[in-house]
Amino acid sequence: MKNYTLRRHNDQPILVTADVTPSEPGFAVLGAFNPAACRFGNEIILLLRVAEAPLPDPDQPNTIAVPIVQFDPKTGEAELMVKRFPEPAEPYDPRVLTIDGQTYLTSLSHLRLARSYDGVHFIIDPQPFLFPARPDESFGVEDARITKIDDTYWITYTAVSENGPGVGLAKTTDFVHVERVGMVLPPPNKDACLFPQRVNGKLMMLHRPMVSDIGKPSVWICESDDGVHWGNHRFVFGALGEAWEFQKIGAGPEPVLTDDGWLLLYHGASQTHEYALALALLDQNNPGQLLDRSAAPLLTPELSWEREGFFPNVVFSNGWVAQPDGSWLVYYGAADSGVGLAILERK
Amino acid sequence: MKNYTLRRHNDQPILVTADVTPSEPGFAVLGAFNPAACRFGNEIILLLRVAEAPLPDPDQPNTIAVPIVQFDPKTGEAELMVKRFPEPAEPYDPRVLTIDGQTYLTSLSHLRLARSYDGVHFIIDPQPFLFPARPDESFGVEDARITKIDDTYWITYTAVSENGPGVGLAKTTDFVHVERVGMVLPPPNKDACLFPQRVNGKLMMLHRPMVSDIGKPSVWICESDDGVHWGNHRFVFGALGEAWEFQKIGAGPEPVLTDDGWLLLYHGASQTHEYALALALLDQNNPGQLLDRSAAPLLTPELSWEREGFFPNVVFSNGWVAQPDGSWLVYYGAADSGVGLAILERK
Repeated sequence: MKNYTLRRHNDQPILVTADVTPSEPGFAVLGAFNPAACRFGNEIILLLRVAEAPLPDPDQPNTIAVPIVQFDPKTGEAELMVKRFPEPAEPYDPRVLTIDGQTYLTSLSHLRLARSYDGVHFIIDPQPFLFPARPDESFGVEDARITKIDDTYWITYTAVSENGPGVGLAKTTDFVHVERVGMVLPPPNKDACLFPQRVNGKLMMLHRPMVSDIGKPSVWICESDDGVHWGNHRFVFGALGEAWEFQKIGAGPEPVLTDDGWLLLYHGASQTHEYALALALLDQNNPGQLLDRSAAPLLTPELSWEREGFFPNVVFSNGWVAQPDGSWLVYYGAADSGVGLAILERK
Repeated sequence: MKNYTLRRHNDQPILVTADVTPSEPGFAVLGAFNPAACRFGNEIILLLRVAEAPLPDPDQPNTIAVPIVQFDPKTGEAELMVKRFPEPAEPYDPRVLTIDGQTYLTSLSHLRLARSYDGVHFIIDPQPFLFPARPDESFGVEDARITKIDDTYWITYTAVSENGPGVGLAKTTDFVHVERVGMVLPPPNKDACLFPQRVNGKLMMLHRPMVSDIGKPSVWICESDDGVHWGNHRFVFGALGEAWEFQKIGAGPEPVLTDDGWLLLYHGASQTHEYALALALLDQNNPGQLLDRSAAPLLTPELSWEREGFFPNVVFSNGWVAQPDGSWLVYYGAADSGVGLAILERK
């Protein structure tokens, strides 16, 4: 993978938390990051993950608020509610709260559209595009990927609930109406992306099983006839034991077909939870076969806004867009707070 | 679920480790347990999990042996090999070994047939029925369920490799030839069982996602048109916080349709890894809907051979067979060593 370079557009983020309005009164935006990306007509669209948290309640000091979307199976309605728990006496991770063996998130993420004509300046919708609304989304929807197949934009995303994170699938043709297909991979799984065309007649999807007991961080592939039902799961590649990808390894945006095979942008996370970006190449006709991968990451968190934020030391990409000159606009989440832009070029 | 009783056939196991011959020279059988079960003609068939370990090598004292099935992608051949590592200086769990961040199993399981005319006395095949042979089976195949759908016996099983445990599927019509369908649910997942008939035109399967980070022990359901590709994953029921099912909760053998709905035998595991058996009832037309469940376990490890063995304090069932009088023969693994028999009756 020596013939690719990934360099920052400049030293500033293209989107920051302050650019985004909260979706609900009583909530604050903690970050707008990890966008999916695609071309739509003459626009470039980002589908941002917006993380929000309830504002402090002056009447309930020394509490931690947990936002949960509760689903009523009788009415089919989902309702956003806030639970408050006493603040732990011990130091704690501010993103999660464990009470009586149940882990909660202190923020709730939804997916929000942003639109641009130049790929750099974006107008952010005031309202969510996809807000948690299912029992398996009670803790939020996160980290989308958009893949255009024929005339439909398929959106894979992480659906999180008290039962863990799984892979949800939705589709749209106009980015106004969106239809949920359902949970296509059960917990614990994340970072799924569809291929933009069928391979040997099958829809293909990469995904990242999470580790429980035995197991190592790895990327898997599976296939489907209809996009709803998936099977023939196979291991594709795993962490090589290098420090930067020791703890996690997962696919980024949709793979892109090149003369050399399917080009894949992926992330690794180190034992100290630092996220970096790298490239891999999969066989054109057998994308479960790894052909090549980066020997070292192409982008690591270096700038202050990549190193400091809601979750520090992260560059994470789940959206890229082809340019007419053959280069790629790579959008990446920075420190779970804002969005950076880098350019991928082939030498 | 008050109208069911589950009582032991007698106080002895029906099968013990010593009844089973090793499948390979140089190996010893550690246990024969957790059998799937079904009627086949006028026989009752068990599909046992047989766990084997390499015998000590006098030339390599103070080592721990790890059996691994290595798959050669070029030839498509799988080969059983033994790696030996220096024995750790610290006390360790004898079932697993972690070296440089990779967890290995110290035993390798395969599936072995046993046949009976009375359901109590079994003849055990000398050779494996399903031996690990795929990359995702390098650490073994475990804990099968058999579900007869039309004229085919579908076998779900846990396929374990260095990338974790997933759900493999195979099928047979004669219990002589067996055809693998592939991995139908990726790691980390276990304890999957198919329903014996379609519901609303779909094949249905229960499964148990394993917990990683956020999440609680729970049983899920999914559906398929062809048995190969699965989707529409939904949470069915989870641990209620009772001690006996605090750590794990998973489906047993295939659900059985009764007048009240789908009857399910399931297991719970406590925080101290003690496994017990209980019942649940799922809606006939919407089996993702829980109707009822046991308030307390129906069978817990009490006898010496249930409390002492390769893994102590386990009663675990993945096989049951209907009797002409309306009762059920419930075969259960005891302490990961032998097999017990209990009778399920409706009052």
